[in-house]
Amino acid sequence: MTGLTPAWGPASAEGWLDSYLSAAAVLDTLRTYDGPAYDAVVLAGFGEHGPEGVRELVDVPVVDITEAAAHLACLLGRRYGVVTTLDRSCGQIEDSLETAGVARNCAAVVGTGLGVLDLAGDPGRPEAAFLTAAERARDAGAEVLVLGCAGMTGLQRAVGEKLGLPVVDGVAAAVKLAESLVTLDLTTSRAGSHQQPLPKERRWGRRPAR
Amino acid sequence: MTGLTPAWGPASAEGWLDSYLSAAAVLDTLRTYDGPAYDAVVLAGFGEHGPEGVRELVDVPVVDITEAAAHLACLLGRRYGVVTTLDRSCGQIEDSLETAGVARNCAAVVGTGLGVLDLAGDPGRPEAAFLTAAERARDAGAEVLVLGCAGMTGLQRAVGEKLGLPVVDGVAAAVKLAESLVTLDLTTSRAGSHQQPLPKERRWGRRPAR
Amino acid sequence: MTGLTPAWGPASAEGWLDSYLSAAAVLDTLRTYDGPAYDAVVLAGFGEHGPEGVRELVDVPVVDITEAAAHLACLLGRRYGVVTTLDRSCGQIEDSLETAGVARNCAAVVGTGLGVLDLAGDPGRPEAAFLTAAERARDAGAEVLVLGCAGMTGLQRAVGEKLGLPVVDGVAAAVKLAESLVTLDLTTSRAGSHQQPLPKERRWGRRPAR
Amino acid sequence: MTGLTPAWGPASAEGWLDSYLSAAAVLDTLRTYDGPAYDAVVLAGFGEHGPEGVRELVDVPVVDITEAAAHLACLLGRRYGVVTTLDRSCGQIEDSLETAGVARNCAAVVGTGLGVLDLAGDPGRPEAAFLTAAERARDAGAEVLVLGCAGMTGLQRAVGEKLGLPVVDGVAAAVKLAESLVTLDLTTSRAGSHQQPLPKERRWGRRPAR
Amino acid sequence: MTGLTPAWGPASAEGWLDSYLSAAAVLDTLRTYDGPAYDAVVLAGFGEHGPEGVRELVDVPVVDITEAAAHLACLLGRRYGVVTTLDRSCGQIEDSLETAGVARNCAAVVGTGLGVLDLAGDPGRPEAAFLTAAERARDAGAEVLVLGCAGMTGLQRAVGEKLGLPVVDGVAAAVKLAESLVTLDLTTSRAGSHQQPLPKERRWGRRPAR
Amino acid sequence: MTGLTPAWGPASAEGWLDSYLSAAAVLDTLRTYDGPAYDAVVLAGFGEHGPEGVRELVDVPVVDITEAAAHLACLLGRRYGVVTTLDRSCGQIEDSLETAGVARNCAAVVGTGLGVLDLAGDPGRPEAAFLTAAERARDAGAEVLVLGCAGMTGLQRAVGEKLGLPVVDGVAAAVKLAESLVTLDLTTSRAGSHQQPLPKERRWGRRPAR
Repeated sequence: MTGLTPAWGPASAEGWLDSYLSAAAVLDTLRTYDGPAYDAVVLAGFGEHGPEGVRELVDVPVVDITEAAAHLACLLGRRYGVVTTLDRSCGQIEDSLETAGVARNCAAVVGTGLGVLDLAGDPGRPEAAFLTAAERARDAGAEVLVLGCAGMTGLQRAVGEKLGLPVVDGVAAAVKLAESLVTLDLTTSRAGSHQQPLPKERRWGRRPAR
Repeated sequence: MTGLTPAWGPASAEGWLDSYLSAAAVLDTLRTYDGPAYDAVVLAGFGEHGPEGVRELVDVPVVDITEAAAHLACLLGRRYGVVTTLDRSCGQIEDSLETAGVARNCAAVVGTGLGVLDLAGDPGRPEAAFLTAAERARDAGAEVLVLGCAGMTGLQRAVGEKLGLPVVDGVAAAVKLAESLVTLDLTTSRAGSHQQPLPKERRWGRRPAR
Repeated sequence: MTGLTPAWGPASAEGWLDSYLSAAAVLDTLRTYDGPAYDAVVLAGFGEHGPEGVRELVDVPVVDITEAAAHLACLLGRRYGVVTTLDRSCGQIEDSLETAGVARNCAAVVGTGLGVLDLAGDPGRPEAAFLTAAERARDAGAEVLVLGCAGMTGLQRAVGEKLGLPVVDGVAAAVKLAESLVTLDLTTSRAGSHQQPLPKERRWGRRPAR
Repeated sequence: MTGLTPAWGPASAEGWLDSYLSAAAVLDTLRTYDGPAYDAVVLAGFGEHGPEGVRELVDVPVVDITEAAAHLACLLGRRYGVVTTLDRSCGQIEDSLETAGVARNCAAVVGTGLGVLDLAGDPGRPEAAFLTAAERARDAGAEVLVLGCAGMTGLQRAVGEKLGLPVVDGVAAAVKLAESLVTLDLTTSRAGSHQQPLPKERRWGRRPAR
Repeated sequence: MTGLTPAWGPASAEGWLDSYLSAAAVLDTLRTYDGPAYDAVVLAGFGEHGPEGVRELVDVPVVDITEAAAHLACLLGRRYGVVTTLDRSCGQIEDSLETAGVARNCAAVVGTGLGVLDLAGDPGRPEAAFLTAAERARDAGAEVLVLGCAGMTGLQRAVGEKLGLPVVDGVAAAVKLAESLVTLDLTTSRAGSHQQPLPKERRWGRRPAR
Repeated sequence: MTGLTPAWGPASAEGWLDSYLSAAAVLDTLRTYDGPAYDAVVLAGFGEHGPEGVRELVDVPVVDITEAAAHLACLLGRRYGVVTTLDRSCGQIEDSLETAGVARNCAAVVGTGLGVLDLAGDPGRPEAAFLTAAERARDAGAEVLVLGCAGMTGLQRAVGEKLGLPVVDGVAAAVKLAESLVTLDLTTSRAGSHQQPLPKERRWGRRPAR
């Protein structure tokens, strides 16, 4: 597994501007990638834009951590909840779940009030904030929880035990789903929505096209 | 992987009566199972009842082929379609997708007119019937197809190539999802809906309780 | 009016396993019934599975108490609420209302915390628990209440007066709707979903087929 | 059963202007009614406005033929269709079903192209037009049909036999539902939406208030 | 801009009976209007019935303040809330938003407990009541507020500043939208639903037809 | 009115990759804009991403042509249809309408098979293609049509007359809505979703941050 971070874009994605900038940077990264071949792409921005564009671009399966977490969560209980970073991101996540087709069983998306970069500090702080937000999701009917940010990866065991609920990490979920699609020899449909990008001039930032 | 077929129930499941009878038989089979330990349960009746009851009964992950196929199909295109056996089963499948939380991206559930047991005969007949029904699903917007019966397993490659669309086999999909959940150490939430069956007297057919 | 209780099945239905077992037992009871002819079937398990299967099996109208109560409740106010037994049953009831086509005006399904068999004891306890849960349904917008368990029959007058709201008993509602259908000479459509069960081998428990 | 026709309003109701005029006239008729006491009100304008206002005004149960037909149709099949008069009325009927909470299982509302007053002539013409429109509803998934105009009452037997489908007459359905509510001692909730009209000056047409 | 008040109808509209009476009176007013020509019609009853009927009647654009406020509110935030007069009106407003096609982004409709005619008194009282109700809408997710009664016009600046949220006055919104449609030379479609009223006898109150 | 075209991005936007690239380029253009002050922003990419990000970035009202056209279309008929360029764009447009809260009354989004750049050639070709696609939208229930691409601006009069339907041009609609918001002194809510971008490092293309 190779991790790629775009050479440009925002330091972290919190809100729509960051998300669109990040989507373009991710697409540029994959478009110009010339490393070893790969079997699948996992997109690790929770609730962020981009997956449909990546599906147009590459011929291998593409799995986003948002949808991956939601798909597995649906298998573990009747309703799931997402606990994420800032409140401002909740609406964007709800929209992502809706267009991915998995919002129906989502009971709530709840913010912890912590920014993405706050997650890197003292591990106790995210855990406490997660537990508080998780109670709100539970009161709204969630029987399963989803870590609503790739930066929360690693929390699932500790908070799951304290809450007595299954907690899904989207990154791990997406890797497993990507492996599953590869094994089953399945990849994105080219019929209808996700056709390859049409050949045309495109400039990726203020530099000459290529 | 061990395959279990209930010692009672219908010869095949086509319609609600068969589905409820089958659900009870599957539950009885698992309840009285005394073979080697298992890590997960895959339920192989497309659109059939039972998964929530099995989730109450066992402590390992439970994946139904209906929901499994739909979850993977959502990752492969914007809308998917299901091609199943008899028209009478379409409504029941639609209800199953709805309660599993994955109906949003389903463009159509279409019948082939073939009964479950007809699938076992000349392989050309199911394939031709599948292709005809698949065109209807495609016209309704499906970009990905799902085999809507466990008895169709094996058709996916041939029809996929002819249609130029990814075709998901629910049995294979469910096995992969079950393996994923086991690897990620995730199982059904006991909070809320899927609590263990309450201790009480239950008679499984016209015989003394046990 | 003749009451039938299946010779097998669970002592009471609380959760999906019980519901599927009960559905199979109800179908077996009707399938092997050889008493006097009847004009309609009323199914008295609130939120339980089975109605669609019974509609396949018999040629007379079939009315389930869940849907009956909801249909009448829709005529009495803009939103209704259901007060039921255990919290674990709420999700199953919501799914039943959804597939019956009457969930749109349901404001809430609320549990009392009492098991089905607890309802048979001191009548004051269910009443108090009902009133507490009813307040939650009312806060969620319910203008009409539904007794969410056949074992609550009889409570409607006392709690209705105390709450100042109409309270619908599903058993009485279903009997009236069944009578209406009989009088109007209407019965289940055989077109599409509810065709008669196909002739095939079926075993109803671990005994020889018949 | 006493039939009342408002002393004012449109000769027939086809479209929203007619529907609102008719609703006001019906309310005025009931408001000023001074005949013998009555136990319930049946409103016989299919898809027309008014039921909620009548529920505010009178203390007895109020049943509209639109919702009544839909409620019974839901008990007879998985999806129902409405066959009505002019195409212009279809949208208004869809809205009525939606706000009454029974649109979920409606597969289609189809016009026959006949005006309300055309229904009174040669009985063969409505029947033929109904059968043509019914085929479209059936193709859209309807397993049960509803007569979408009070003026169609009487057609149900002939067209039902020819189509092999149950056909619900809203007038008969509403009478049965009204009788059911009266027998069960249930009437409109005064909590929330349907409170009695506030005392205030109201002029019912260009004449002095009273 | 010319303001018209019907010569008959209710002193204010609170509830369905008032709304239907008002709709008929508004239609009668427009039908018999013989003043200077006009370019558009603005309907100033929040959540009231009538717009579709007026669209059938006149050839110029028709904009209702309910839908106008909702349309502009959707442009200002992800979810909006409506603060209206009595609680009894909330359901009717929700239904109006739904059939107008703009309910999806409505987070809540909340009553202040003040009647329409109470709004004309001491300006401090509506403001305080509005602020209290607005907090409930905000807690439900509203990022933008709508004045839910034409009688609240003028409050938007004061409450908007105190709440730190955009507040939309439906009357002003509707005037702007009507001007926009006139400038763009757009008016109601005559295809389908909003055809002109059919020529037929109609009596508008208890007097001879004309 | 000043038109801005980003200095980078795709030559035209057809599909998700183009849409995300375009969104980032539009944001960069506005972020670095140093011309005269402006009162509002109109975004002229039909169905494209970006509006929410622009709402975070600027303090003036932001109106996208997709949502603008849909809002006005809702005022002109009960259901509207969108006629756009390539079929591959239809899904993306449907998603945009959904998240903007105006999909409810959309009867269909139909492609003409013409690319964005094809629209610039012989004017007869787009018109003929539009009329063909418009018939499909009409059959699906559309009473009003929307030009589904900024490049179609100018077609509305000719096709509207031939179809006998109102046709909304999103660019004109958005300009009018933006003017309306400016006149009413309304701008994007900063509560909840559309807060200003957080201060952090962001690189807009492969160059040093600034």
